[in-house]
Amino acid sequence: MNRIEKQIAFIKEIDKLKEVYRRSYLFSQSRNENSAEHCWHVSMMAVILSEHANLNVNLSRVVEMLLVHDIVEIDAGDTFCYDEGGNLDKNKREQEAANRIFSILPDDQSDRLMKLWREYENADTPEAKFAIALDRLMPLLHNLGTSGKSWRENGITKNQVLERNEKIDNGSHALWEYAKQNILKAVENGILKDDAEPGSSHCPEGAGFF
Amino acid sequence: MNRIEKQIAFIKEIDKLKEVYRRSYLFSQSRNENSAEHCWHVSMMAVILSEHANLNVNLSRVVEMLLVHDIVEIDAGDTFCYDEGGNLDKNKREQEAANRIFSILPDDQSDRLMKLWREYENADTPEAKFAIALDRLMPLLHNLGTSGKSWRENGITKNQVLERNEKIDNGSHALWEYAKQNILKAVENGILKDDAEPGSSHCPEGAGFF
Repeated sequence: MNRIEKQIAFIKEIDKLKEVYRRSYLFSQSRNENSAEHCWHVSMMAVILSEHANLNVNLSRVVEMLLVHDIVEIDAGDTFCYDEGGNLDKNKREQEAANRIFSILPDDQSDRLMKLWREYENADTPEAKFAIALDRLMPLLHNLGTSGKSWRENGITKNQVLERNEKIDNGSHALWEYAKQNILKAVENGILKDDAEPGSSHCPEGAGFF
Repeated sequence: MNRIEKQIAFIKEIDKLKEVYRRSYLFSQSRNENSAEHCWHVSMMAVILSEHANLNVNLSRVVEMLLVHDIVEIDAGDTFCYDEGGNLDKNKREQEAANRIFSILPDDQSDRLMKLWREYENADTPEAKFAIALDRLMPLLHNLGTSGKSWRENGITKNQVLERNEKIDNGSHALWEYAKQNILKAVENGILKDDAEPGSSHCPEGAGFF
C-alpha cells in the first residue's frame, strides 16, 4: 500500500470505535453512549473549557489527545472505571491494541499517535492532566443529568465517585470545585448513595436537579 | 447562570447531536452513522490527512471547525446532500439553529463559534476548503466500503457523485485524485450506477472492492 492507502485503511479501521459502547447514558437516556461520539464530546469540552486548566495548555495537543485517547478500545473494549478486575490487565490489553491499530498508519504517523496516546496514559504533562480531567468530568455530567442512572445500575457510592474523580483537580481546580459541589448535591437529592447509609447498595431513584 | 454554568449547559445541549442520524452507514453496515461520531471521524481525518491539503493549513483551526460544523443539525436535522428540496431552505434553518445553540455559551465564545461555523459555510479560507473536502470524502468512503449501500438506496448515479464531490479538489488535489479513481472503480464493479445505463434508477448490488 502507498502512503495515502495506509492512511485511508486506518480511517476505515477506526470506524469500529462507533460500536464500542460505554456504561454512560445519553442525557436523553435513550441508549448508552459509544466511544467515538464520546471522543467528539470531550474534544468539544476542551475547546469550551480550556480557560479552566490549571496551567497554560496547548489546546491543539489536548484536542488531538482526546480524539485519539480511546481508539485502543476497538480491541481492548471500554473498561468501566469502577471495575477493579477489568482495570488490572487494562494496560496490557490497551498497549497491544495500540501496537496493532496505530501500525496501520505510515511509520512516522504511527509513532506520533503512539507518543500522543502514551502522553495521555502517563498523565505527566499539563495537556494530559487537563485532557484526563475532561474525560472524568463527562461521565459525571451524564450521571448528574440522568438522575444517576449508571451509578444506580452499578451500585456506585459517593466515596467511590469522589475518589475516582479527584484527578480532575490535577487538571483543573475550577472544574473539580464545580464537580464536588454537584456530587454533594447529588447525594442530598438522593441520586447518589451516601456510604454512611445502611442497607442495599442500590440507591433508590432520586429527584433530578441538574 | 455564571460563566462555567453556561459552558456546561452548552456541553449538555450538544449531546443531542448523537441522536441526529445521517444517510451514511457504518462500514459494518449495522446501522446509520450519527452526526456526533461523524464529527469525530472527520476530525481524525484532518489529523491524519492534513499533509494533502493544497495550501498550508492551520490544523488546529481545521479540527475545531470540523468539531463544530454539524452542531446546527440538532435543530436543522441532517440534510442529505442529494436532496434538492431540503437544500433550498437549509441555510435559513441552519442559521436559526446556530443563533439558538451558540447563544447558550458566554458571549465571547458564542461569537467565536459562530465565526468558525460561518467560515466553514462560506468556504473561502484554505482551512474551510480543506475541512469541506474531508466532509465530502467521508461519506464517499462509507459508500465505497458498503458496496454503495446509501447510493443504491437513494438511486444516486455516477455523475451526481462526481458533481457533488468535485469540491474535494478545492481543498486537496491529491484526495480528489484518490476519490475519482475510486468512483470510477465503483462504476466498473457495479456498485455505482453509470448515468449511461438504461432502465431502473436502482443499481443492483455489485461486488465490493474497497
